[in-house]
Amino acid sequence: MKPRVLIIGGGFGGLYAARALHHAPVDVTLVDRTNHHLFQPLLYQVATATLAPTDITAPIRHLLRHQSNTTVLMAEVTSIELERRVARLSDGSELPYDYLIVATGARHSYFGHPEWEAKAPGLKSIEDAIEIRRRFLLAFEKAELAQDADECAACLTFVVVGGGPTGVELAGMLPTITRFALPGDFRRFDPAKARVILVEGGPRVLPTFPEDLSAHAERDLVDLGVEVRTRAIVTAVGDGFVDIGDERIEARTVFWAAGNAASPIGKSFGLPLDRSGRVQVDADLGVPGRPEVFVIGDLAVMTTDGKPVPGVAPAAMQSGRAAARNILRSIRGEPRRPFHYRNKGDVATIGRYKAVAVIAGLHLSGNVAWWSWLFIHIMYLAGFRNRLSVLLEWGYAFFTYQRGARLITRR
Amino acid sequence: MKPRVLIIGGGFGGLYAARALHHAPVDVTLVDRTNHHLFQPLLYQVATATLAPTDITAPIRHLLRHQSNTTVLMAEVTSIELERRVARLSDGSELPYDYLIVATGARHSYFGHPEWEAKAPGLKSIEDAIEIRRRFLLAFEKAELAQDADECAACLTFVVVGGGPTGVELAGMLPTITRFALPGDFRRFDPAKARVILVEGGPRVLPTFPEDLSAHAERDLVDLGVEVRTRAIVTAVGDGFVDIGDERIEARTVFWAAGNAASPIGKSFGLPLDRSGRVQVDADLGVPGRPEVFVIGDLAVMTTDGKPVPGVAPAAMQSGRAAARNILRSIRGEPRRPFHYRNKGDVATIGRYKAVAVIAGLHLSGNVAWWSWLFIHIMYLAGFRNRLSVLLEWGYAFFTYQRGARLITRR
Repeated sequence: MKPRVLIIGGGFGGLYAARALHHAPVDVTLVDRTNHHLFQPLLYQVATATLAPTDITAPIRHLLRHQSNTTVLMAEVTSIELERRVARLSDGSELPYDYLIVATGARHSYFGHPEWEAKAPGLKSIEDAIEIRRRFLLAFEKAELAQDADECAACLTFVVVGGGPTGVELAGMLPTITRFALPGDFRRFDPAKARVILVEGGPRVLPTFPEDLSAHAERDLVDLGVEVRTRAIVTAVGDGFVDIGDERIEARTVFWAAGNAASPIGKSFGLPLDRSGRVQVDADLGVPGRPEVFVIGDLAVMTTDGKPVPGVAPAAMQSGRAAARNILRSIRGEPRRPFHYRNKGDVATIGRYKAVAVIAGLHLSGNVAWWSWLFIHIMYLAGFRNRLSVLLEWGYAFFTYQRGARLITRR
Repeated sequence: MKPRVLIIGGGFGGLYAARALHHAPVDVTLVDRTNHHLFQPLLYQVATATLAPTDITAPIRHLLRHQSNTTVLMAEVTSIELERRVARLSDGSELPYDYLIVATGARHSYFGHPEWEAKAPGLKSIEDAIEIRRRFLLAFEKAELAQDADECAACLTFVVVGGGPTGVELAGMLPTITRFALPGDFRRFDPAKARVILVEGGPRVLPTFPEDLSAHAERDLVDLGVEVRTRAIVTAVGDGFVDIGDERIEARTVFWAAGNAASPIGKSFGLPLDRSGRVQVDADLGVPGRPEVFVIGDLAVMTTDGKPVPGVAPAAMQSGRAAARNILRSIRGEPRRPFHYRNKGDVATIGRYKAVAVIAGLHLSGNVAWWSWLFIHIMYLAGFRNRLSVLLEWGYAFFTYQRGARLITRR
């Protein structure tokens, strides 16, 4: 019998691990709670009604259909029994393994205030994006129905908490839409008057980028009309308001893009976790004392040449591939290799035609960075069809300023 | 002050009524529970993962943005006070009117068994279509997880109740997907072995079509592998089964496309309703004794030259336009005109490349009917962008046999 490799999670880490086992003499099973791989870097475009949910998702099993050694199951893993080498599913059944790759990623962290989640949804899953889209579009519908000017203004105030790439991209897209896509559609107020406030606890937005690009991004955001508040701490999120320090902001719509909390499955390893619940792994991505178990992507505290690896999509992809290759080395009786992260660059878009990027050590901004962003994302989008569909939507949005996905669905 | 025209409902009836009041000396308010106009004739394509929900919806306010005399509100009308001439919204506020057009359409009827709805969803709203898509795709995921052959077979049995156009189009699309789009994606069963059963209470499918086309459609369905059961009555819908007469069919997935129940708002008129809750209107579409109130589309029992008008999209469009014009005639002091329905034809598709149609009295079938269907639907699709996007999706589906919208979202 061929060695059984079980992969939990069909994000970038799990998918690239599975792909690296194509043609290998192993039986692969990939389990995910959803049926789809999600192209997370474009999630904010679904949240802002630019792309359709189906544009950035693809069935995991369809992406892996040509790998005859791979079975994809849509199921929830509730626990892992390391001694017996089985994963237990929510229906009570068990999946045995010889090698295990855990790639279940992270959710948002509300810093000890889980009750804020219902009031300020985060942006990790396609359901999150649909919910943010719903609230964003509904705010304008509520403004058209508002009985007085204060209520109307509160409906038109949007607070984005967290100045990392997700927060910056989300906050940068909102004024683009309120200024260009919506005017003309409403009779009782001017959508261009909407306020967008970006709140960041640290001294600058995009803290993982070089300082000059952070400054550039902040200027671009301010030019778009975003109120950028750095060194600002959210102290309360209530029904219809946010407190930033001592100041209360009447805002009916709040989005959360701050902090990561690793998927809870990390706890079942009985290993020390870091503050955000991530699992410390060895240099070869194996779990200490459990050479048959690997943890990758956002769930792992990974290092490369002694430095921490950032929680970004390329790191998930590369670690997935590295873990799969180390499994194959173990099967062949070869020594494993330490994971080496190749940072190919970072990029974040700001609104319609601007971006900041670090590519091959170069600091880029403005149009050049934006075109780089476009090229990279189109190249990586999984599956030819989505690529074409996304290009069409972008072309439409770019040339007409309109948004093609302004759909509010009921919960 | 200009006369106030209130339109309730943004489907084909309400939208075409509003459009007919463009440039007229009236203040128009259109109220809908949702933010979008829905192109209902293509709803089954969303339910079968061919089109994205955003392909067949468009914000009502965006479609009416150039009508400066028209305000669109997303709100729910809970009752109408005919004496005071106001509509009451769910938030307690009131909308006064001088003329009222009610176009709230119909939902499915479960023939006195409302408890079947949760087990066998119907297909009227975009949420319905997303739910049917979810269940359809989930059935195959469950089959891949099934522990025995019986469970697997029950997961792969789909029952569609109702042999009208919606049921026929839905049932015809399912085998096309199970045979062509899904094989290769699963490891533990062959999706082409899925059973699709279409249940119709009457003697033939498409009962509103000529008999020869009904026979043609039935042959096309059988060729596709659909089990067509006419004169068959559903006697129970339970957890995981359907009873047809005395026979129990183990089917985990049941869809409902039988019977119409008019929107409940019809009751507030205090007028006699027909069996399915529709309001009897005068020849000019006005409500008897209430010349300022019109009821149109699926909510009305309309006649033309003494014959009943079918509950189809063109009838809703034409009656919306006719009611709006009669309002303008009343304002000008001219006599109203009776509604005259022009039947431009009927068409229903069956699977990938076949259809039946009656156009200008001609009975068409096969490819010719299918191309007519394609042409008509592309022409009527509201908004240029959706048209292009839909053509792209269809082209992709047609040439690759794949489906671009295989997304399961959590409820």
